Amino acid sequence: MGTGIFLFAGLASITPWTQPAVDPGNPGITAQSQSSGAGSEPSGTVSSAVAATPSLGDVGTQASCSLASPNPLHVSLAFGSSVALMSYCALPLSGGHLNPAVTVSMLVAGKVRPAWAVCYILAQLLGGIAASAALYGLTPEHARGQMGVNKLAPGVSLLQALGIEVIVSFQLVLCILATSGSKRDPSKGGHLVIGLSVMLGHLVAIGYTGCSMNPARSLGPALITFEFANHWVFWLGPLGGALAAAVLDELVLAPTGSGFRQ
Amino acid sequence: MGTGIFLFAGLASITPWTQPAVDPGNPGITAQSQSSGAGSEPSGTVSSAVAATPSLGDVGTQASCSLASPNPLHVSLAFGSSVALMSYCALPLSGGHLNPAVTVSMLVAGKVRPAWAVCYILAQLLGGIAASAALYGLTPEHARGQMGVNKLAPGVSLLQALGIEVIVSFQLVLCILATSGSKRDPSKGGHLVIGLSVMLGHLVAIGYTGCSMNPARSLGPALITFEFANHWVFWLGPLGGALAAAVLDELVLAPTGSGFRQ
Amino acid sequence: MGTGIFLFAGLASITPWTQPAVDPGNPGITAQSQSSGAGSEPSGTVSSAVAATPSLGDVGTQASCSLASPNPLHVSLAFGSSVALMSYCALPLSGGHLNPAVTVSMLVAGKVRPAWAVCYILAQLLGGIAASAALYGLTPEHARGQMGVNKLAPGVSLLQALGIEVIVSFQLVLCILATSGSKRDPSKGGHLVIGLSVMLGHLVAIGYTGCSMNPARSLGPALITFEFANHWVFWLGPLGGALAAAVLDELVLAPTGSGFRQ
Amino acid sequence: MGTGIFLFAGLASITPWTQPAVDPGNPGITAQSQSSGAGSEPSGTVSSAVAATPSLGDVGTQASCSLASPNPLHVSLAFGSSVALMSYCALPLSGGHLNPAVTVSMLVAGKVRPAWAVCYILAQLLGGIAASAALYGLTPEHARGQMGVNKLAPGVSLLQALGIEVIVSFQLVLCILATSGSKRDPSKGGHLVIGLSVMLGHLVAIGYTGCSMNPARSLGPALITFEFANHWVFWLGPLGGALAAAVLDELVLAPTGSGFRQ
Ligand SMILES: [Ca+2]
Ligand SMILES: [Ca+2]
Ligand SMILES: [Ca+2]
Ligand SMILES: [Ca+2]
Repeated sequence: MGTGIFLFAGLASITPWTQPAVDPGNPGITAQSQSSGAGSEPSGTVSSAVAATPSLGDVGTQASCSLASPNPLHVSLAFGSSVALMSYCALPLSGGHLNPAVTVSMLVAGKVRPAWAVCYILAQLLGGIAASAALYGLTPEHARGQMGVNKLAPGVSLLQALGIEVIVSFQLVLCILATSGSKRDPSKGGHLVIGLSVMLGHLVAIGYTGCSMNPARSLGPALITFEFANHWVFWLGPLGGALAAAVLDELVLAPTGSGFRQ
Repeated sequence: MGTGIFLFAGLASITPWTQPAVDPGNPGITAQSQSSGAGSEPSGTVSSAVAATPSLGDVGTQASCSLASPNPLHVSLAFGSSVALMSYCALPLSGGHLNPAVTVSMLVAGKVRPAWAVCYILAQLLGGIAASAALYGLTPEHARGQMGVNKLAPGVSLLQALGIEVIVSFQLVLCILATSGSKRDPSKGGHLVIGLSVMLGHLVAIGYTGCSMNPARSLGPALITFEFANHWVFWLGPLGGALAAAVLDELVLAPTGSGFRQ
Repeated sequence: MGTGIFLFAGLASITPWTQPAVDPGNPGITAQSQSSGAGSEPSGTVSSAVAATPSLGDVGTQASCSLASPNPLHVSLAFGSSVALMSYCALPLSGGHLNPAVTVSMLVAGKVRPAWAVCYILAQLLGGIAASAALYGLTPEHARGQMGVNKLAPGVSLLQALGIEVIVSFQLVLCILATSGSKRDPSKGGHLVIGLSVMLGHLVAIGYTGCSMNPARSLGPALITFEFANHWVFWLGPLGGALAAAVLDELVLAPTGSGFRQ
Repeated sequence: MGTGIFLFAGLASITPWTQPAVDPGNPGITAQSQSSGAGSEPSGTVSSAVAATPSLGDVGTQASCSLASPNPLHVSLAFGSSVALMSYCALPLSGGHLNPAVTVSMLVAGKVRPAWAVCYILAQLLGGIAASAALYGLTPEHARGQMGVNKLAPGVSLLQALGIEVIVSFQLVLCILATSGSKRDPSKGGHLVIGLSVMLGHLVAIGYTGCSMNPARSLGPALITFEFANHWVFWLGPLGGALAAAVLDELVLAPTGSGFRQ
């Protein structure tokens, strides 16, 4: 059964992880900033100005490839809709656990048993790695970029990145906990709320860190590209935000009396 | 009655097929990639960089025409909303069958009778061809581009294109099967879930293949432009993904005991 | 009472008509095409290519004004959401009649009395004119462009424009009639379906005609800019599409036996 | 208890206020207009045309920073979804009061007691300031721009700005009042309607004033950047629109007999 959940989560995870390659928003944004940072003056010559446009900055990195369209709206809509659809489809099986931070928040809130939480998290991490590997194989070499790895945008400090990840993860987990009452009835639209929340997180954080909110989403691309600089931010930030949301939900919003493992 | 369904499906299909011409995303992307592939170096001169932007790449092909706006978001939203609305409006008549791959998956799951499935698929193919012809007539000659024909982006191998089409069709059919319980009650939002899923498929696959997910959507433009290179990918991919989704749904997610034609 | 409805419809109409000025998509698109049509060759020099980008084409017309952002997605989302919200808010008062074509289709379907239909249509036309006048006053002179007047894009023939307007109005009215059963209960999401349908119409038709679907939406800007070339297309197209939808709905989709004024 | 609401509102307000920095739409738009206004002729030289594109205009101000993407669609979606999610999550605690204009309209409609209204408004203002300060700390110095302060776009007169703010606030408050019947049941989708309305307001007004609709949203950035020119517009406009909506709702749309403090 644990195996079944693992396989399914791995399978289901393929969809969301594929976006960063289709439109490699994060490396695109980073590449753009670096190139414009290197050679542009405020007066804006044609070449530097053109190189600094999001859609053109990628041209330097990815040359002749139609896969480069790092529009943040595109990435945000893709992640939001994929999580909404996965939580709609996967509901009967895994209870919608797709994110270690969410699972930890539910463990703290007493909504999942510790042994199950460990199984879920292992399955999520393996699923993220498998999905990144599949994506690596599916994308032409020149279009792979950095496989959507989460990293700090130039000029963003570690503390700022951590703060942003805490905030967006906080609002995501708050929304997930707020929908948990209506979770078993898909007609109540909880999946749409969760999808909106994932979209919002990307709209806010994509310019700072590429938006993780989910350690399993960050681990796969980091392994494939072997890019582990500041990787801990994408574990500490989501977990910190998730714990804060769980505490707020337990103490203030929906004190059910079942939480905190008492 | 079969005729009535044919006529209706043909009529209803006009709407979704019109997008590729309004914003000819696929040929635009392809044209762009080819032009940038032909003459651009990674260092990015102004001219090649400009030619590689999505909105500028089309200028070479389509010159003085305001119809060229191959924004992938535009195409994705248009396809997503049109399928959502068609499955909302057409529900009482055709049960929402608009896609041969979906019909085959329902045949495998025992949710439609073989004779009806054949009628549906014929109507879908004829509808797709009629819609492409109507679109051809409605669009000024210089703006027709390649009529939104599905083809592989430069650098994408056959296996990669097939894999992407399998994955996006898999998630689409999984969502359609997941909504089938609430299908008869439009207030349950099943049409919104299906529309989101179509949008997601386009956001993911548009850079690889133009996103088919539906052989009937690919056949019409291919006939009109007589562009059948790798056309089989847009039959095998969607059908493969649909079958995988039907098997997963039957065996794991919602084993109803009525499937597999027993 | 008729007066009350008139006043309210005039008030409510202000919102949707303001979009064309905020982002004057239609004149922008037209201006862009004309400028690129005048001086661009398929090979794409930098200047002509840049002049042909949607966001740059407007610079020629509107110079120093931040109001020029003729992104078709922006216009489509604005019109879609405004109609969704108006049909949500105005429901108890006017039954959601905001469009002469919709009112005529409901007259044919026997869902509104002829005298009321005349009142509604007069109020809609006056509302459209009042809203255009208000918008004219609210927008700085250099940003007014052509006030979002509907006109044919270069290269689009009268027959093609008429065909596109018939198709998008057809799908809009079909959706409105399909929601009419659940109309009195806003939690059923009928307003979202109508909003999606308005958005889809704009995504499809904005490159051909600026997308009317509604004679009252076309009359106001035409009066203010005194631009009546081909204005009849925006009456005949929407009315033709609406009548076709009403007939299909009555005969095939939802034959209630109350229609066709018997 | 008042304190609890204050803390929570301050916390909850962080999310929406962060968008102006992530994509500093308003200063970006303003910068763009000024630079293009200074040096562009209608004929459109390459340099002035490039400098006038939204995404390039920012390059002059913000140089090497990936945080600059002042796409109005991005800003509109972010604000819309954040308000939708906050009104979904915060419902049990604060009744969704996040905006002084909304609270005043509910005071006039007799739906909140005067003492509570004062507490709510103080908490909203403090929350807005705290959120702006947090955002200031989270954003790298070169990317701060003007912190999303609301100001008039070049060429927009005070009267025009006031008119636009009145109109968008009017439609927002009308929608909020229309959802108030279904407010306690999140499955009725009232939060989606409110989010759509916030998105629409931004799509309409962002080119004129950056779109306030909420004095608390305007106060924070104005304090941090000490930019109080025409600040009163963002108090008078939202309050005027909110009062007009409350009167219309009370007298015509939903006369409950409880309003106007009788
Ligand atoms: Ca998640
Ligand atoms: Ca389909
Ligand atoms: Ca309408
Ligand atoms: Ca608000």
